[in-house]
Amino acid sequence: MAGERATPLLKDELDIVIPTIRNLDFLEMWRPFFESYHLIIVQDGDPSKTIKVPEGFDYELYNRNDINRILGPKASCISFKDSACRCFGYMVSKKKYIYTIDDDCFVAKNPSGEDINALEQHIKNLLSPSTPHFFNTLYDPYREGADFVRGYPFSLREGVPTAVSHGLWLNIPDYDAPTQLVKPRERNTRYVDAVLTIPKGTIFPMCGMNLAFNRDLIGPAMYFGLMGDGQPIGRYDDMWAGWCTKVICDHLNLGVKTGLPYIWHSKASNPFVNLKKEYKGIYWQEDIIPFFQSVTLPKECKTVQECYLELAKLVKAKLSSVDPYFTKLADAMVTWIEAWDELNLAGDGSAKALNDTAK
Amino acid sequence: MAGERATPLLKDELDIVIPTIRNLDFLEMWRPFFESYHLIIVQDGDPSKTIKVPEGFDYELYNRNDINRILGPKASCISFKDSACRCFGYMVSKKKYIYTIDDDCFVAKNPSGEDINALEQHIKNLLSPSTPHFFNTLYDPYREGADFVRGYPFSLREGVPTAVSHGLWLNIPDYDAPTQLVKPRERNTRYVDAVLTIPKGTIFPMCGMNLAFNRDLIGPAMYFGLMGDGQPIGRYDDMWAGWCTKVICDHLNLGVKTGLPYIWHSKASNPFVNLKKEYKGIYWQEDIIPFFQSVTLPKECKTVQECYLELAKLVKAKLSSVDPYFTKLADAMVTWIEAWDELNLAGDGSAKALNDTAK
Repeated sequence: MAGERATPLLKDELDIVIPTIRNLDFLEMWRPFFESYHLIIVQDGDPSKTIKVPEGFDYELYNRNDINRILGPKASCISFKDSACRCFGYMVSKKKYIYTIDDDCFVAKNPSGEDINALEQHIKNLLSPSTPHFFNTLYDPYREGADFVRGYPFSLREGVPTAVSHGLWLNIPDYDAPTQLVKPRERNTRYVDAVLTIPKGTIFPMCGMNLAFNRDLIGPAMYFGLMGDGQPIGRYDDMWAGWCTKVICDHLNLGVKTGLPYIWHSKASNPFVNLKKEYKGIYWQEDIIPFFQSVTLPKECKTVQECYLELAKLVKAKLSSVDPYFTKLADAMVTWIEAWDELNLAGDGSAKALNDTAK
Repeated sequence: MAGERATPLLKDELDIVIPTIRNLDFLEMWRPFFESYHLIIVQDGDPSKTIKVPEGFDYELYNRNDINRILGPKASCISFKDSACRCFGYMVSKKKYIYTIDDDCFVAKNPSGEDINALEQHIKNLLSPSTPHFFNTLYDPYREGADFVRGYPFSLREGVPTAVSHGLWLNIPDYDAPTQLVKPRERNTRYVDAVLTIPKGTIFPMCGMNLAFNRDLIGPAMYFGLMGDGQPIGRYDDMWAGWCTKVICDHLNLGVKTGLPYIWHSKASNPFVNLKKEYKGIYWQEDIIPFFQSVTLPKECKTVQECYLELAKLVKAKLSSVDPYFTKLADAMVTWIEAWDELNLAGDGSAKALNDTAK
């Protein structure tokens, strides 16, 4: 499995979204796996800087000026000086699937020493169903060599469509600043050969470093929030997206998988800087998580957009007392959906035109 | 880790319960890991048959005559001609922890080729907390080399006491009869190096082949139901115990872990015989599982016994319409608790006397 080229099936159905502030040398290592796909690069920070992309890759690149031009006043919902800006790439993509990866993530090796084709595993995860309604002790029942165990209800074996594939990280684990500070030398060396569905009703900490999703099924929920420049918080962009996404997946009967594939995360970010970004989130999440654990969406909400707007309302009503930031965030959630719909429901022509200007 | 002797910590705190109808030659392979523990052998079937136990093991053995003598009329709650009889062993044990294993399960090897000390891993699982209230994407955060990932609420990192450790199987997977028939050659060769907590609110198919639990915390819920001789169903004994146990663990804020350790399951049971035992269960579980998924216990229930008696009431009220069998089962659940309390609350003296007669 590992080492093979990704199935060509999704060549024209998947975009790779990369947020960055630097030259994309890391792509050299990914060349055999990424070269046949289209990249959407979201340049963060100073738009006058030129980002070098290795020869041979097919890409479009958006900097802050592009984002401002394309979204106009609605650009306020896209974070600046924070990798949360990546969600702009989800919005301008026209593909069915998105894979997003950080530029400090490299190709990992499986226990046999072969290069792991992360994208191929994500595609497998997304193309096979999920099983959120009952737990399978042998993990993903759709993998080769596995199945549903004794006692698994037959009526649930068809599964549900998979919306999200959450991949993991060897070497530097995705720890918060306090854990980084306490365990500066900890490395993740354990290769767990499993993919599993996160059960319905269970929310989880979704990391944006190595993440794929079905944009048609869940795209509008993949908003990475307001982080970075001018905001009181950072490093909760993917968490926010994960909480919202999981609640909406549960409501719409969609699945979220976690586990394989691994990437090699090369470098821990600065824990002191991280602590500054995180400390309000560490405090706030004690209220946010119970909110998401108990939130229920009315059954009238049948599209991701309807669910998301309802969630924005609930965020404003229930979390604004935690901090005024959540009022602003709830408004940004609405703006995000407006912008999404503008770019995506406006007919192919205009949406394509926006893309064409960006190259 | 693998290959070491089990930590002596639990030498006097753990019993190994083995249901069997044959000589226990399989213990030879387990000698380095089991010899220092006490075995409770529950002999099923013809009580006049002699079960040979290899030299050097410390054990007590109960056959049907012993069960009838010790429990009197309450012996009706213990299944006959079905490995469900093993739960009698849980009842007569006086130890804090139970490990139960089938006699067709052998020592498995880890990917490095070392023998896996299954008992040691179960003890590790039981002695470290569980995390049912939030999902950790790097699996058990208490394992060496792992921790809670970014976004995991700090207030939940203490975890909750672990009540159950559910181990898995290499070689012959625990499949139902239809899957056995469809995939006669499937073998489980995937060693997944993970232990994880099954989230609160999620029930699971618990297999009794390789299972450990904290008897003090959850023992009275580990009733394996009415199966085998005179009953319309078989092979749902461990499932029943698992559904009841998980619901009660969730209510009492206790944890259930699954994953490591693996044992080597040597031989598939006859799928035609299994189909006969299972077919009503396959049909019934379509109603039973929604029942367990939605059941809630009143907060007045504070002990396992109180929870279990309440569950018996609900089973009678809600599942008797599925089949009259559930009325009988609900009554047996009550008898089981009465018998448990008689043996376990009657003061050490009398309980010990019962044990002494059995050797």
